[in-house]
Amino acid sequence: MTPQQELLKKLASKTDTKIVLVVMDGVGGIHTVDSAQTALETANTPNLDALAGRGATGRLIPCEVGVTPGSGPGHLALFGYDPLVPAYEIGRGVLEACGINFPLTPSMVATRGNFCSLGADGTITDRRAGRIPSDEGARICQKLQKAIPRIEDVKIHTRPVKEYRFCTIFDGPGLEPSIEDTDPQKVGLATLPARTTSATAAGKKTQRIVQAFLDQAFKVMADEPKANGLVLRGFAVDPGLPKFQELYKLTPCAIATYPLYRGVASLAGMEVLETGQTIADEVATLKEVWDKFDFFFFHVKKTDSNGEDGNLAGKIKVIEEFDAALPGILEMKPDVIAVTADHCTPYVMKGHSYHPVPLLICGPTCDVDATVAFTESECLRGSLGTFHSEKLMGLLLDNAGKLLKFGS
Amino acid sequence: MTPQQELLKKLASKTDTKIVLVVMDGVGGIHTVDSAQTALETANTPNLDALAGRGATGRLIPCEVGVTPGSGPGHLALFGYDPLVPAYEIGRGVLEACGINFPLTPSMVATRGNFCSLGADGTITDRRAGRIPSDEGARICQKLQKAIPRIEDVKIHTRPVKEYRFCTIFDGPGLEPSIEDTDPQKVGLATLPARTTSATAAGKKTQRIVQAFLDQAFKVMADEPKANGLVLRGFAVDPGLPKFQELYKLTPCAIATYPLYRGVASLAGMEVLETGQTIADEVATLKEVWDKFDFFFFHVKKTDSNGEDGNLAGKIKVIEEFDAALPGILEMKPDVIAVTADHCTPYVMKGHSYHPVPLLICGPTCDVDATVAFTESECLRGSLGTFHSEKLMGLLLDNAGKLLKFGS
Repeated sequence: MTPQQELLKKLASKTDTKIVLVVMDGVGGIHTVDSAQTALETANTPNLDALAGRGATGRLIPCEVGVTPGSGPGHLALFGYDPLVPAYEIGRGVLEACGINFPLTPSMVATRGNFCSLGADGTITDRRAGRIPSDEGARICQKLQKAIPRIEDVKIHTRPVKEYRFCTIFDGPGLEPSIEDTDPQKVGLATLPARTTSATAAGKKTQRIVQAFLDQAFKVMADEPKANGLVLRGFAVDPGLPKFQELYKLTPCAIATYPLYRGVASLAGMEVLETGQTIADEVATLKEVWDKFDFFFFHVKKTDSNGEDGNLAGKIKVIEEFDAALPGILEMKPDVIAVTADHCTPYVMKGHSYHPVPLLICGPTCDVDATVAFTESECLRGSLGTFHSEKLMGLLLDNAGKLLKFGS
Repeated sequence: MTPQQELLKKLASKTDTKIVLVVMDGVGGIHTVDSAQTALETANTPNLDALAGRGATGRLIPCEVGVTPGSGPGHLALFGYDPLVPAYEIGRGVLEACGINFPLTPSMVATRGNFCSLGADGTITDRRAGRIPSDEGARICQKLQKAIPRIEDVKIHTRPVKEYRFCTIFDGPGLEPSIEDTDPQKVGLATLPARTTSATAAGKKTQRIVQAFLDQAFKVMADEPKANGLVLRGFAVDPGLPKFQELYKLTPCAIATYPLYRGVASLAGMEVLETGQTIADEVATLKEVWDKFDFFFFHVKKTDSNGEDGNLAGKIKVIEEFDAALPGILEMKPDVIAVTADHCTPYVMKGHSYHPVPLLICGPTCDVDATVAFTESECLRGSLGTFHSEKLMGLLLDNAGKLLKFGS
């Protein structure tokens, strides 16, 4: 636990107030000589503007000045975990397993798998097995699960994620995640064998088990028309994050559609809810469960996807879609609502960036400032200033009257 | 290595892009009731203004809030080394030795010396030996070097720096830098003997060698008309900083006229180039070597000297001189250019100060903001915000497309 978390843990108290944290993934943008307005500045957002008018704005540094975070570190920071603390590093395998609600325990090594197509010579011809549909992926996972339920004293769990993506979890004593990806990252190359980077007995055992799994799996899949091979990546164990309940005395839930975000939320102790694919579906879920929780992580994915695609119009449309859905959230009368992002995904960059993300907080003690829109340029002059994402939770808790005074 | 550096080291990759970091030494100023405009705000700087117009501005905290740095820590921070980490402390002797390109190794203890004038009673009558000219200082250094090439198993290197200033480097086994300055800091007092602050064998040996050097040197210099004495200060060893090549995968060079800045740059792994004394000379050097490097530390000294002298007009003149030279740098089309300072030297204070320094970055992803001048008041409202100098390198690397994403 970081000193910041020790402090919040000491001061947090259980109350009836409710906090909604809306993460509009990658919503922030940048200005360039040729592009003077960001998606947020262009979108028509009367409801966000009104919220900014009666709230306060500022900016969050997602990770560190100049350092562009992935979605994992970006969300960890928003949830109050310093993403640069090595103990909080979440491997991709664990994220993926949590994303499908697989109940990880400390003795499990989780991996993220891709089905691929292999040619007659055993080299990869398609790294995504022709993007087989999800039911096809699920069928092959079932076949693998049935054929390879255990190797030595290690239980093997193979579960579908989406299309050609799946998880394999190695569950047994004396394993460690020191295995390198078996993905050569290119077509025309053979998949790699299991290779440990560690000289320990656990490293050797894990390498042996994983290799045995690969050998058996390739046999089982040999007759598949498309997905006749697989690669395993991101070998990882649950980092055992301190949970929201323990840290903040919250009863938290997550409303998110994509596995990765559901995964991080689950590792932080949130109950990950089933929900639909649209923002309106997510609002409906929020309303349904309103009485059961006091912290709601509400994730909007497609601002990021459109930013990644360089699609300004698409990004604007998602922002406006959220703006239209916002009154539905406000109807529930959250004591504190924050709207922000895990990182910027400027459409002009077609990717994540390090830039500070806009932040809007509306709550009884937020210190209403002169800013009247949720945009990069307004947030730059807001009363909340610019600070690191991992400090946001303290601000939300205190606005919700959940933090005691420090010292007398 | 600090966590910040570990992170950048992990994420940095070699690319073809080029970064220019211009340090206008001490360029920042402050406002007082009687002095409403700083040198930067008064100077006529059309080129800097235009660069600000298509770039982003902000402010750097050179060392720590309220803490005034010397030039050493100020530059260390700009180069990404936390100046408050004790292992990164660079003794004055080492700075001086690096400044004259003396090739230090870990077994050497370097000191910075001043020649002084002694009266008949052996007390100091002039702490700078009447500011003897450089060739005079060089002649005496040669005389000392010839007379005292070695003491026991320790080689002695005595080298001129400038005027009455020189370096003596003690090069042998079992030495340590635990020797106090022999300078009494006042005329009318005798120079001090070598005194170690340590009880180790190395401390005793170093004290013995240094004292023997002092005894012999005073004899050798006894017949000099002015420089008939010397003091040694700043006993230090090379701190062994991780280098730019290792940290950032950069091939860096330094264009700076003064020994101290050349020294810090050399310790950070930069190739320290020969250059002329004017800003125009420095620009010419930059152009000559443009193809050989991907990071250029470009130092402008006299903004600081004029600030130290309380000379507003002089400071403005140097700023305008740099502004006139700026197009020559921009002609080379650096991918990223930053202009900032190691600390403020407000002319109203006639010395360094702790105040945040103005920062201007122009690069493809700098996030062009509404600021249109490189001044203290404009930088206060720039989109880069205010952050610690040691985080600047990350921002420059990312703007130059040299940093991978952190985490998935």
